[in-house]
Amino acid sequence: MAAPAGFTLGELAAALGATLEGDPRRVVRGVAPLASAGPDDISFLIDPRYRDAALASRAGAFLTPPNAADLPAPALRCAAPQQALIQLLNLFHPEAPAKPGIDPAAVVSADAHVDGSACVGALTVVEAGARIGAGVRLYPLVYVGPGVEIGDGCIIYPHVTLRDGVRLGRRVIVHPGAVLGADGFGYAFHEGAHRKIPQVGGVRVEDDVEIGANTTIDRATFGDTVVGRGTKIDNLVQLGHNVEVGEHCIIVSQVGVSGSSRLGRGVVLAGQVGVADHVTIGDGAVIGGRSGIAADVAPGEKLLGTPARPILQAKRIMLAEGKLPELLQRVRALERRLQALEGGAAEADDAGA
Amino acid sequence: MAAPAGFTLGELAAALGATLEGDPRRVVRGVAPLASAGPDDISFLIDPRYRDAALASRAGAFLTPPNAADLPAPALRCAAPQQALIQLLNLFHPEAPAKPGIDPAAVVSADAHVDGSACVGALTVVEAGARIGAGVRLYPLVYVGPGVEIGDGCIIYPHVTLRDGVRLGRRVIVHPGAVLGADGFGYAFHEGAHRKIPQVGGVRVEDDVEIGANTTIDRATFGDTVVGRGTKIDNLVQLGHNVEVGEHCIIVSQVGVSGSSRLGRGVVLAGQVGVADHVTIGDGAVIGGRSGIAADVAPGEKLLGTPARPILQAKRIMLAEGKLPELLQRVRALERRLQALEGGAAEADDAGA
Amino acid sequence: MAAPAGFTLGELAAALGATLEGDPRRVVRGVAPLASAGPDDISFLIDPRYRDAALASRAGAFLTPPNAADLPAPALRCAAPQQALIQLLNLFHPEAPAKPGIDPAAVVSADAHVDGSACVGALTVVEAGARIGAGVRLYPLVYVGPGVEIGDGCIIYPHVTLRDGVRLGRRVIVHPGAVLGADGFGYAFHEGAHRKIPQVGGVRVEDDVEIGANTTIDRATFGDTVVGRGTKIDNLVQLGHNVEVGEHCIIVSQVGVSGSSRLGRGVVLAGQVGVADHVTIGDGAVIGGRSGIAADVAPGEKLLGTPARPILQAKRIMLAEGKLPELLQRVRALERRLQALEGGAAEADDAGA
Repeated sequence: MAAPAGFTLGELAAALGATLEGDPRRVVRGVAPLASAGPDDISFLIDPRYRDAALASRAGAFLTPPNAADLPAPALRCAAPQQALIQLLNLFHPEAPAKPGIDPAAVVSADAHVDGSACVGALTVVEAGARIGAGVRLYPLVYVGPGVEIGDGCIIYPHVTLRDGVRLGRRVIVHPGAVLGADGFGYAFHEGAHRKIPQVGGVRVEDDVEIGANTTIDRATFGDTVVGRGTKIDNLVQLGHNVEVGEHCIIVSQVGVSGSSRLGRGVVLAGQVGVADHVTIGDGAVIGGRSGIAADVAPGEKLLGTPARPILQAKRIMLAEGKLPELLQRVRALERRLQALEGGAAEADDAGA
Repeated sequence: MAAPAGFTLGELAAALGATLEGDPRRVVRGVAPLASAGPDDISFLIDPRYRDAALASRAGAFLTPPNAADLPAPALRCAAPQQALIQLLNLFHPEAPAKPGIDPAAVVSADAHVDGSACVGALTVVEAGARIGAGVRLYPLVYVGPGVEIGDGCIIYPHVTLRDGVRLGRRVIVHPGAVLGADGFGYAFHEGAHRKIPQVGGVRVEDDVEIGANTTIDRATFGDTVVGRGTKIDNLVQLGHNVEVGEHCIIVSQVGVSGSSRLGRGVVLAGQVGVADHVTIGDGAVIGGRSGIAADVAPGEKLLGTPARPILQAKRIMLAEGKLPELLQRVRALERRLQALEGGAAEADDAGA
Repeated sequence: MAAPAGFTLGELAAALGATLEGDPRRVVRGVAPLASAGPDDISFLIDPRYRDAALASRAGAFLTPPNAADLPAPALRCAAPQQALIQLLNLFHPEAPAKPGIDPAAVVSADAHVDGSACVGALTVVEAGARIGAGVRLYPLVYVGPGVEIGDGCIIYPHVTLRDGVRLGRRVIVHPGAVLGADGFGYAFHEGAHRKIPQVGGVRVEDDVEIGANTTIDRATFGDTVVGRGTKIDNLVQLGHNVEVGEHCIIVSQVGVSGSSRLGRGVVLAGQVGVADHVTIGDGAVIGGRSGIAADVAPGEKLLGTPARPILQAKRIMLAEGKLPELLQRVRALERRLQALEGGAAEADDAGA
């Protein structure tokens, strides 16, 4: 992502709707974190805990919240500095422009519909009946199966597989190697062998979803596996057949969600979490890293561990586990002491009799 | 998968060997679950627990076991209704026919043998010495390495890599992005660096195996990594070098099996299980989700947890863990009470002396 | 990997710098483990525990340490037999020679630089500005993004994706399906949705690194995600944005390392380990399989479990957990006995009063 020649602070203040404290003609040529920024870079101080690093920074300018105190270089003050940083990064690192059109080395079925503003990369295959929307970017070496629908503005990276029955909304990003629409894992044991249950459903991905590299989302047995609007999925995640993920969820790397489970809206599954099949996780629930979810989770719950428990309880148990070997010894000591005492008490009984 | 125009119930009864209760001329055009089926669909009631859903269903017909009671529409009664459902799905969703032959955009070595009835998709590479059997379907963008053997009737989805030394039996299905025959992970530390041990073995996959999307099965150091007949492997599974998996096993998503471990016949590993290296898991063992297997498992055992324990014991331990913080307090209380008592007992001793 | 016609033991002794005990004209045609070796094979006895297997072996010759006692066939004695085995395997299984040059079915940008000694496979895409070093082997169906740098002697297997901003040192091996340089997983929640933080950094991989099949290494938000010299990474591993891995580490299959965490030199992460974000793991630390690392780890520590604890302590806790249900009963019994005694002691007090 090549950066342009640079911007004046005045230009940036106008673009970001920021209040500039300093010389509007000063030019910056890049964005960098506090520690590595040089005099030609603009840096950012969003979290006040990093104030000392900002004071020590060599940055030529800073992006800050309205109330950040004196800084060693001009400041662009913004009400929402993290959003301004996103804008700033997009200004300095614009998406490399992709020339609309179908690369001569692509293999596109005559029965596919590709919008004139879409870009189909070299050695990408688009099968019959597929529909590619406006402004879509298919990188090289993508496989788009028969009848697949790709909404406007999607970006599909190399080596992605979209099998038949997959439909993507608008502005969906699918990272390299992801597989959407592979058969769900369904068999019935009969006469000594596992018989494959045909998986005749599809996968529906709503607008503004992002799907990580080498992630796999299986087609439904019937109906659709669904990923709701605005949900972000990291790398190497597995979503089984008929899983339904609500809107604006966060699913971190290496999570697995088994068949027919449902996530509500705004659910967070941290890394390596496993969810059993046919489980419902309520809106806004947050599941800590490496937890195992085997039963329904109420909305808003914050769970951790296997089995998953409320996070404070889980941490108390983990602490207590650390004392378990010592606890065994203490109980053994109690038993001995009590036995001695019971002998003594018997004597005392005798004495008192 | 486009469905044909429909079938009469009479046709379906004949095809499935079912007893029809109702009008044989009635036409159904699709298969759907009880809740979503409409009057043009045939649905199915296999598990009697769903009887209420069946009574409420709008389905035009039902597939049922012989003894299912009155239903609101015609019934096809079958001795093995789940197998009949599989047949039914295959009737309504026949595999899209693939035209035999080599796509002009495929890159097939002159030294490869491709059966005339096989189908090689666009942009698929078949290297020298590879042998592709009858009726094989290679989707686009597959890599078939030198000397690879693919038995009759296999289906290989896009972006699969089969490196040299891989041999597939008949009717093997390999889902998108799976990698068979990558080097095993073997090094010897020598003079300050990890030295690669050449991995000169292969991978042998027997008949009727299914391998999930983005799953990785490494070649053996010597000899073969083996997947036995009828075994089904889900997505994102890792099988290390020289692993041997028996026949008719089920390996669910994100399982990892380390080098040289062996699974017997009919073993089930649920999702995210990890198996250490050089472990043997006996025939018919069942390992619960997210368990860690570090030692041999006897045939037929049902284990859960890390370390894995018999499932009932594991569940008892998980329950007991929930009481652990309280247990610590109870033991502390016991110690205090006992100390008090020991003081009292000493006095009583004195008194009794 | 086709083996050549064979070698005499004299030739092998010279090549390995070994002392030969036996007929130098004897020919061997392959390398095999003790159990499967035949009279035409050379086998190896490196670990003295396998001595009985060596005595029973039908091998035509053995590779052994200097002090191995009488064997049933000629012996090549080496000071470093494991390294000699690596040499031996490379002699019998030389890397299949790749013809230098660009396959006519490759798609290479006119603005890319490909060394004349490099080999670019069919249907591989090399984008503008990429630099491919001497002796590099790009297998078919690889994607090399704009400006990617690939050092001398690298091997890149099929279906690998190297996005822009990726730079590989020399002799790096990337196994099939691996994805380097996908966007890191970074969002800021604003006005009801997760807003993507542009990921403008890259990935730097140093010399002699090996990266497993379907592994994913994300680009940095700023700067670089780094994998240090000589580090070996297994299949299906996830390294998040801005992770820094030191030199000569071992990262086993299905490990996940979250954003901005750092591994020192010579760290070992066994299979399925998870590392939280912003954690530092010191030089030489060893983390047992399936452990969860949520806090910094000191150099040289050997940890196990979730939360991770020193390995002996972790094993003691696991043992103690097995006794937890029984412990609960013992504490209940203690409480009853103590209560009884307290009643008795009260009586004794009365008696003594």
